[in-house]
Amino acid sequence: MASSAPSSSGGGPDPNSSNLRPPSTTYDTWCGVAHGCTRKLGMKICGFLQRNNSLEDKSRIVSSFKERQAAKNLLSCENIDRDPRFRRTETDFSNLYARDLLPAKNGEEPTVQFLLEVVDILLSYIKKTFDRSTKVLDFHHPHQLLEGIEGFNLELSDQPESLEQILVDCRDSLKYGVRTGHPRFFNQLSSGLDIIGLAGEWLTSTANTNMFTYEIAPVFVLMEQLTLRKMREIIGWPRGDGDGIFSPGGAISNMYSVMAARYKYFPDVKTKGMAAVPKLILFTSELSHYSIKKAGAALGFGTENVILIKTDERGRVIPADLESKIIEVKQKGYVPLYVNATAGTTVYGAFDPINEIADICEKYNLWLHVDGAWGGGLLMSRKHRHKLNGIERANSVTWNPHKMMGVLLQCSAILVREKGILQGCNQMCAGYLFQQDKQYDVSYDTGDKAIQCGRHVDIFKFWLMWKAKGTVGFEQHVNKCLDLAEYLYTKIKNREGYEMVFSGEPQHTNVCFWYIPPSLRGMPDCEERRERLHRVAPKIKARMMECGTTMVGYQPQGDKVNFFRMVVSNSASTKSDIDFLIDEIERLGEDL
Amino acid sequence: MASSAPSSSGGGPDPNSSNLRPPSTTYDTWCGVAHGCTRKLGMKICGFLQRNNSLEDKSRIVSSFKERQAAKNLLSCENIDRDPRFRRTETDFSNLYARDLLPAKNGEEPTVQFLLEVVDILLSYIKKTFDRSTKVLDFHHPHQLLEGIEGFNLELSDQPESLEQILVDCRDSLKYGVRTGHPRFFNQLSSGLDIIGLAGEWLTSTANTNMFTYEIAPVFVLMEQLTLRKMREIIGWPRGDGDGIFSPGGAISNMYSVMAARYKYFPDVKTKGMAAVPKLILFTSELSHYSIKKAGAALGFGTENVILIKTDERGRVIPADLESKIIEVKQKGYVPLYVNATAGTTVYGAFDPINEIADICEKYNLWLHVDGAWGGGLLMSRKHRHKLNGIERANSVTWNPHKMMGVLLQCSAILVREKGILQGCNQMCAGYLFQQDKQYDVSYDTGDKAIQCGRHVDIFKFWLMWKAKGTVGFEQHVNKCLDLAEYLYTKIKNREGYEMVFSGEPQHTNVCFWYIPPSLRGMPDCEERRERLHRVAPKIKARMMECGTTMVGYQPQGDKVNFFRMVVSNSASTKSDIDFLIDEIERLGEDL
Repeated sequence: MASSAPSSSGGGPDPNSSNLRPPSTTYDTWCGVAHGCTRKLGMKICGFLQRNNSLEDKSRIVSSFKERQAAKNLLSCENIDRDPRFRRTETDFSNLYARDLLPAKNGEEPTVQFLLEVVDILLSYIKKTFDRSTKVLDFHHPHQLLEGIEGFNLELSDQPESLEQILVDCRDSLKYGVRTGHPRFFNQLSSGLDIIGLAGEWLTSTANTNMFTYEIAPVFVLMEQLTLRKMREIIGWPRGDGDGIFSPGGAISNMYSVMAARYKYFPDVKTKGMAAVPKLILFTSELSHYSIKKAGAALGFGTENVILIKTDERGRVIPADLESKIIEVKQKGYVPLYVNATAGTTVYGAFDPINEIADICEKYNLWLHVDGAWGGGLLMSRKHRHKLNGIERANSVTWNPHKMMGVLLQCSAILVREKGILQGCNQMCAGYLFQQDKQYDVSYDTGDKAIQCGRHVDIFKFWLMWKAKGTVGFEQHVNKCLDLAEYLYTKIKNREGYEMVFSGEPQHTNVCFWYIPPSLRGMPDCEERRERLHRVAPKIKARMMECGTTMVGYQPQGDKVNFFRMVVSNSASTKSDIDFLIDEIERLGEDL
Repeated sequence: MASSAPSSSGGGPDPNSSNLRPPSTTYDTWCGVAHGCTRKLGMKICGFLQRNNSLEDKSRIVSSFKERQAAKNLLSCENIDRDPRFRRTETDFSNLYARDLLPAKNGEEPTVQFLLEVVDILLSYIKKTFDRSTKVLDFHHPHQLLEGIEGFNLELSDQPESLEQILVDCRDSLKYGVRTGHPRFFNQLSSGLDIIGLAGEWLTSTANTNMFTYEIAPVFVLMEQLTLRKMREIIGWPRGDGDGIFSPGGAISNMYSVMAARYKYFPDVKTKGMAAVPKLILFTSELSHYSIKKAGAALGFGTENVILIKTDERGRVIPADLESKIIEVKQKGYVPLYVNATAGTTVYGAFDPINEIADICEKYNLWLHVDGAWGGGLLMSRKHRHKLNGIERANSVTWNPHKMMGVLLQCSAILVREKGILQGCNQMCAGYLFQQDKQYDVSYDTGDKAIQCGRHVDIFKFWLMWKAKGTVGFEQHVNKCLDLAEYLYTKIKNREGYEMVFSGEPQHTNVCFWYIPPSLRGMPDCEERRERLHRVAPKIKARMMECGTTMVGYQPQGDKVNFFRMVVSNSASTKSDIDFLIDEIERLGEDL
């Protein structure tokens, strides 16, 4: 599949219109003309003819071209870019409204022109996002934006705005936002702007469908199935067997894992509720993501029954602590149900020792979930996947391609080793949606596995990126990001004015450090120093945002005062951006 | 805001690049040239100059224009469309790969060309979607698509595909999908393809950010806040006070309502779980959406504790049945907690009598939720909003703009009358995300209200549509759809070969009916007739999908055999499409 398929590519028949072929004589005549030209040009024209429904359409387009005023252009007078497909013309949007667009009569041309204008705005935005001379953000306080800046009015009104104003609104919305794709945006685990993924998302929204049945999302449902199987193969489950679903984010994926565990051991909960079962206990690292606690609260376990396991100085679960807590809980007469091992914690990027945890889960018959929302991407790298050794022993895995793999938001998978649990756990057999007497194999209607009814199409962008990069492309991306983190770590570990939050090379791209301004250097560790250091990162961050030059996260953790957490997941970032970040921290923090 | 704002519109300075103004001499020089032309053209050129970061950039673009081969065009030789902004050129994508796109060195031009090519595919798709001579779908069975049709290969591989192949993949993915925006797609409550909404979604994916903090989604967070307030005003809560959030679909919104109710009455559940509270009972109509049961199962109530209320022949809750069931439950020592009243049931489109239900909820101190996922849109219509009378008495409301208001998937709101409950219920205060020492007012960080961590930006398309249509535009849309349903009802209620599933005019756009093929007409009601009639709708539906001409849903309900459920939410549909549907049912069902 790496090579192109000439039979349905740009030059050949457009498969998208095969049922709309114009009358054969017309088609043949025009193709004859076309084939008289060079092959490539001829094919182009054939493509054009096939892409247009009928000769009438073609004539209309030709005459529309002829009628069109020659656009005024001072910069170039050449005959350029005359491909006869959709093209921008001088359009006055000040007298056009949403009601003039499709499905309005004669709405086609305004629709095309409006969308091309929007695309122009987006292309300009994209171009600047990758340009380091552009600011990452143009910060304003909430009250400033709410009061309206330079005419940008967020309020909704009864009467429609012109399309011209809508275009202005689009520009303004981007202007006052944050460029998460900027090479110097390091603030979140999800960053970057993958162009293929973006194309995929534009297509997804144009298709505007819903994952609940094969009936209305045949292609996307199959893509989801194939991609999930591939992910399960990479996890190491035999033949990629098992189950899974894309969900709206890692927190929901983790919630699914808890539901699946509960249903596996206590299927009666579905009908009788938590009152019908003994007190069930969930275990997770004290440094794991807060979504495990959220799931505990939401699903009726209660946060007190989510027991936190101690971690070592690098942020990894201490297996002995897990085992002693399991024993303790059992002695109280409670039932240990579930252990979450994190592959890539949010702040430290630590990988819990999955094999050791799996041994304990097997010994006590507990469900093992691996939250690889952040670290799952490392499975794509032959160099780094050993950090998840043992993941094949998990009962379920959360893996967010929208984090380490650079897929656009949102794209999170929950993968379950045993087939049928998600379905059993969640299905309600709604007769209006999941009819059993459809003409196709209804096992492809996956909606009843979900806690959602309608479900957004999150798969296409990911599938398209995989096609475009190949497995090797994701591997290169992961390796590159980890190399950059290593570069940062090496750069600052012995640099004056820096202290690492934990010693040793980071396992993921998370590099956690304090910047010590000159005024605090040499000061002995005491309460005053701690208090002052605690205020350094927020102050530098605030200045960064005011300047708009870069963004990086900070937080306190346990007894540790505010420190920076640097992460890299953006394929646009380079060593020079890491250097820039360090320079910027020093520039902005020098006087603190 | 209905008028355009010339200071920042197409002709004026582009606010998106104000921090990137080129050196002033260059800028002024070029603007001088520009202002020598007609005002509009001059402004365009100024806009262009400002949109480009520097003179270098401009020179590069000019020379790139000059270097470019004049495209060969047999259909027109005029000088057309020479606006110097982003434009398609003849690009050979067979030797280009994802790695050649941004952030690659010199990746800008391939990126622009690739995205413009994608947009061309999408525009072609959009154009055909609104063209009634296009099929709604090109049906294939799962195994056919999996085996690969005409070179369309869904499998993922290790090596990258060329961009030419990626473009083919995009075309194929659309070709084998379902056109949910087609005027004759009546299969789902969500249908249509709103162009403004589409533009909004393209922008959203380009911005690629996350709703959890103001820090990285300042504009979208404020838009969500303002829009939710507006929705609460329309519901009728004083000053629009209250709370809310956009969630990934109506099922999750309904789940939020149950969580909020539980937390309001039994806040200890959050920490201690369902074991710490009495047996709690949820009530909902036997014809309500299955998501209430799903929530009951997921949240630990158990589906047995979701008690179904009887409905009348029109599908509306019988309040007396609700009251007697509440009393019954109390007598058993259980605690009635929550009542869901549906505004617009999925199949019948019925509106439960909210005021009567609210009286009962007040009397027994129960939480009242209104599931207006489907019917909430009628609040926008002065003519139809009376069907939701009493909604202002609800404690919470689900309202999906992606259904009756034609917003693209996904867009669902959960609105809560009392402020603070969502936050109290769900917050976990993650230190790495919701730092309290940020430089801005952190009450705008709304992420801790959600059960999700990352949250997709669902607001922008909706906000933009509201701007573009005004409140009146949504009202017109709703009224038009209801008029069409009335047209269908009037057309078939006395027509030979049709039986209505319930008598009287539908409350929503749902028209439920049996088509009786000639062979069954006149046959007395008996088991054989019922069995044969049960097979009619699936058979017609299968033929419709094979022909690809139209799509409409069917289902059995209770003791009623399979019937058609027609719904209209697509602004592209007209009376002629309703006529077409009826003709098509008769054509395809005549011989059954």
